[in-house]
Parts: sequence; structure tokens; C-alpha cells
Amino acid sequence: MHSFKELSEKFEAFFKKDYFPAEPKNLYDAARHILSIGGKRVRPVLVLMGNELFDEINEDAYHAAAAIELFHNFSLIHDDIMDKAPLRRGHTTVHKKYGENTAILAGDVTLVEAYQSLSRIKSNHIHKLLQVFNTTAQQVCEGQQQDMDFEQLDFVELAEYAEMIELKTSVLLAGSLKLGAIIGGAGQGNQDHLYDFGKNLGMAFQVQDDYLDVFGNPEKFGKQPGGDIIANKKTFLQIHALQNASAADKTVLMHWMHSDPKDSSEKVQAVTEIFKRTGADTWAESLKEKYYANALKELDQIAVTTTRKTKLLELAEFLLLREH
Amino acid sequence: MHSFKELSEKFEAFFKKDYFPAEPKNLYDAARHILSIGGKRVRPVLVLMGNELFDEINEDAYHAAAAIELFHNFSLIHDDIMDKAPLRRGHTTVHKKYGENTAILAGDVTLVEAYQSLSRIKSNHIHKLLQVFNTTAQQVCEGQQQDMDFEQLDFVELAEYAEMIELKTSVLLAGSLKLGAIIGGAGQGNQDHLYDFGKNLGMAFQVQDDYLDVFGNPEKFGKQPGGDIIANKKTFLQIHALQNASAADKTVLMHWMHSDPKDSSEKVQAVTEIFKRTGADTWAESLKEKYYANALKELDQIAVTTTRKTKLLELAEFLLLREH
Repeated sequence: MHSFKELSEKFEAFFKKDYFPAEPKNLYDAARHILSIGGKRVRPVLVLMGNELFDEINEDAYHAAAAIELFHNFSLIHDDIMDKAPLRRGHTTVHKKYGENTAILAGDVTLVEAYQSLSRIKSNHIHKLLQVFNTTAQQVCEGQQQDMDFEQLDFVELAEYAEMIELKTSVLLAGSLKLGAIIGGAGQGNQDHLYDFGKNLGMAFQVQDDYLDVFGNPEKFGKQPGGDIIANKKTFLQIHALQNASAADKTVLMHWMHSDPKDSSEKVQAVTEIFKRTGADTWAESLKEKYYANALKELDQIAVTTTRKTKLLELAEFLLLREH
Repeated sequence: MHSFKELSEKFEAFFKKDYFPAEPKNLYDAARHILSIGGKRVRPVLVLMGNELFDEINEDAYHAAAAIELFHNFSLIHDDIMDKAPLRRGHTTVHKKYGENTAILAGDVTLVEAYQSLSRIKSNHIHKLLQVFNTTAQQVCEGQQQDMDFEQLDFVELAEYAEMIELKTSVLLAGSLKLGAIIGGAGQGNQDHLYDFGKNLGMAFQVQDDYLDVFGNPEKFGKQPGGDIIANKKTFLQIHALQNASAADKTVLMHWMHSDPKDSSEKVQAVTEIFKRTGADTWAESLKEKYYANALKELDQIAVTTTRKTKLLELAEFLLLREH
């Protein structure tokens, strides 16, 4: 069994090949750009871990992992266009560097290349793997559409927001694990439990992400708090606060959600105070724990020895900043 | 053996199912919009004809045909965004009706749905089919990038333009036939000849398209001639004319290529005159004949009885407006 770090290095070694031809230069330089920025490669490593939970890692898992990472990068290229984002992981986004049209096409060829990776899988389960991959891909697109739809609304129900996060973020983690499980020869029940483990882990991670954006230690995370507040983003905290604030606080919150002051410190402070008054901080912590507990329950249900589950458990604890 | 018309009806009956879920409504209404506009469905029928050239039509061919048609519609959605086109087959384009962001995503889910159709193929050749499909998809994207790159240039070599057309248009016809041939159990040699038949047919068709835009009979084709001239588009005629015009005509041609007069009739007339003086019209007719002859030569090489080839020959003659 390998740790996340070990598998991450193995995947990088596999993934560093050049996926694209030289010409047309514009198109493929744009596609290469986002791959070169790197990232934590969490999703492809989850494919490998999903495989290794049940059996030794099969070459097929590397192809599925590459497909997942290519898909993830395709979705980042297109999402950045839609969000008009100038930066991604501190680097210029593809559309800012190469123009929107080339960025659309670069996303397209990256998605096709993801399927080219899938086509290298030798497993007899290729049909099932394709279907899991396709369903996941479709859900991620649906999540992005919901996210854009929600931007037009003042109020979103918690259940709607949670569904959007599930589609946009969690199913890709869950789907990655499931692809690995299928390649590892897992039965349907084990596949489903591992999928739900990944889904709940993803939800817990997003709640934490929303929480840390406001209440994280700036020294520890290297960024000033309140980025989501400044950007008027819907988050678990914001939705909880809007639902639970006093009439007066609600008015103040709505005021800030529609203003973009040059100096945002007053806005961040005021909104954070309202979050605290509604108890959004402790509520978010308990919501994260709930998702985490659900994830563990699913992991528990998987019919393999406890020792085989250690590496996944370590990863979950690491992602959720839990200390032993 | 079935005619194009018969297979077209069979395909429509198969393809009329609803490929998309209800929600998010915005996203899937946008994806449905372009499918509902219809079209001649030439490409999917080529999949069926490619299959039937070698064997009775297998259910797999319908899934591959649907994948090809979904892919074609994906590429239309994204191309229309890049080209800022307001209309497609006389209907509002997806991005004009639903906004650019939703159109990007609608294209994405349509492409994923194409792969979902491929995943329904039961054939043992699924890996090969995926690889042919992926290579074709990549080439179509490359062709679109080249087309955009060429818009920035005054001069493009004939060979470069022909390569762009091959990628953007011809390989999808060729790839459709090849998918059908693989499903029909054709050997590698027969697959390759059928592919090259499709590629040459596509080239001949594009030369004809460029020709008819200028020299077509308005009464017969229901549109005024010169659309490409008005839009300053590069075409086989335009490239031949620029290469073969006198210095004076070249200057006039370049002048018109950079002007967008309100009343375009003078422009169309002047450019058409130059095309005629350089012999672009007769040259294009002979170029079309050359591609057509090459297509026939490839068809000839395919090792099946002549009668099996009749329907493909009829289609080629129909597409190239040839009379018996």
C-alpha cells in the first residue's frame, strides 16, 4: 500500500509525457499551459488509491487517472472563461493568455484527450468505466450551470447549494475513487460505499473551504480572510447566515452583498460579525463533522481489511486538517 | 442495401429520443435547441452506410452514428460562439439564445453525451472505435483553430487552406465511414480506402461549396451569390485568384478584402470579375473533378462487390450535384 505522497509522485512520473502534438501551436500551447501549472493532483491519486484499496495497482488505473486529471483541467479552462477569472493557481488563465476562442478549443481538445486516455484501458470493464466517467463529467457541467444560475439569485436554499457543490466538486472525487475501485475488481456494493465516502469527503472539504476563507488563520494559510465575502459569493456560511439572521442583520447583509467598496475591510468585518452572531461558524464546523462522520461510516462498510483502509483515512484526515 | 434517404429516416427514428435530463433547464434546453434544428444528418448516415458496405447494419452502428451527430452538433455550438454567428440553419444560435457561458457548457455536455452513445457499443472493437473517434474529434478542433488563425492573415497557401478544410470538414465524413466499416467487420485495407473515399468526397464538396457561393444559380439555391466575398472569407477561389491575379487585380482584390461597404453588390461584382479573369471558376471545377476522381479510385479499391457500392456512389453523385 502506498501513501498519497508516494502515489502522487508515481502519477507525476506517468503524467509528465507531452499529451499534445506541436501544431496548431496556438491551440496546443494553450492546452499545455494549464497542465504545466500543476496542482495537487488529488483526483488522479484517488483513482490509484481506489484501485489499491482492492488490489495491486493496474496500469489501467494510470490511464483512468490521467483521464480524470485531463478532464479536471478541461473544466478549469472552461470555468475560468465563464467566471472571467484572470488567475488560476497564481498563473494567467488560458483565456487571458491565448484569447477566449482558443481557450474554448483548448478545453475541447483536453476533454477529447481525456477520452483518448480512457481508450488505452485494456480492462473488460471499459464500458462501465466510460459510463461512470461520462455521468461524472455531465454532473460537473450541471454543477457549473447551477453555480452560474445561483449568481443571479439573492436567496438560495441550503439544500440547493449543497446539491450544486455535490455536482460541481464532490462527484469528481467520488467518481475518481469509483473508477479505481472498478479497475481493482471491487463489487458493486464496495464501489458504491467508496463513491459515497468520496462524496461526503468532498462535501466536508468544501464546508471547511468556505469556513477557512472567513475564519482561517491568515498566517497559516498565507492569504487575507474574506475573499468570498468580497466577491459576494454564496457559501455555506452566507446561506446559513441569511436564513438565521435577525431582520436588521439580514438587511445589512443584503446591503453588503450588493456593494463593492474599494476598501473592503469594513465589509469583511461587518459580514464576519453577522456570520458570528448567527452562529454560522460553529454550525459550519458541526456540518463538516457530520459529512466527515458520514464519510467514515461509508469507509467502514467497505469489505476489505482495516489495514487496507489506512492510507485513505490518512488522506481524509490530511485534507480535513485533522490532527491525530 | 438501403439508400441514403431510407437510412436517414431510420436514423431519425433512432435519434429522436431525448438525450438530456430536465434540469438544469437552462443548460439542457440550450443543448436540445441545436439538435431540434435538424440538418441533413449526412454524417450519421455515413456511419450506417459504412457498416452496410460490408455487412448488415448492427445496432452498434446506430450508437456510433448518434455519437457522430452529437459530436457534430457540439462543434457547431462552439464554432458559432467563436465565429460570433447569429444564425445557424435559419435559427438563432445557441449562444445568442442562451448566452455564451451556457453555450460553452451546452457544447461540453453534448460532447460528453456523444461519448455516452459510444459507451453503448457492444462490439469488441470498442477501443479502436474510440481511438478513431478521438483522432477525428481532435482534428476537427485543429481545423477550427487553423481557420481562426488564417483569419488573421492576408495570404494563405493553397496547401494550407486545403489542409484546414481537410481537418475541419473532410475527416469527419471520412471518420464516420470508417467507424461504420469497423463495425461492419472490414479489414484495415478496406477501412483505409473507405476513409480516403470520404476524405476526397469532403474536399470535392467543399470546393463545390466555395464555387456555388459565387457562381451558383440564385434561383436554384435560394440565396444571393457572394456571401463568402461579402464576409471576406478565404475560399478555394479567393486563394487561387490572389495567387494568379495581375498586380493591378491583386491590389483591387486586397482593397475589397479589407472593406465592408453597406451596399455590397459592387464588391461582389468586382471580386467575381477578378475570379473569372484568373480562371478561378474553371480551375475550381477541375479541382472538384480531381478530388471526385480520387474518391472514386478509393471506392474502386474496396474489396466488396460492385453492387454493394451503388448506394455510396449514388450519394456521392447526389452531394456533388452530378447528373447521371
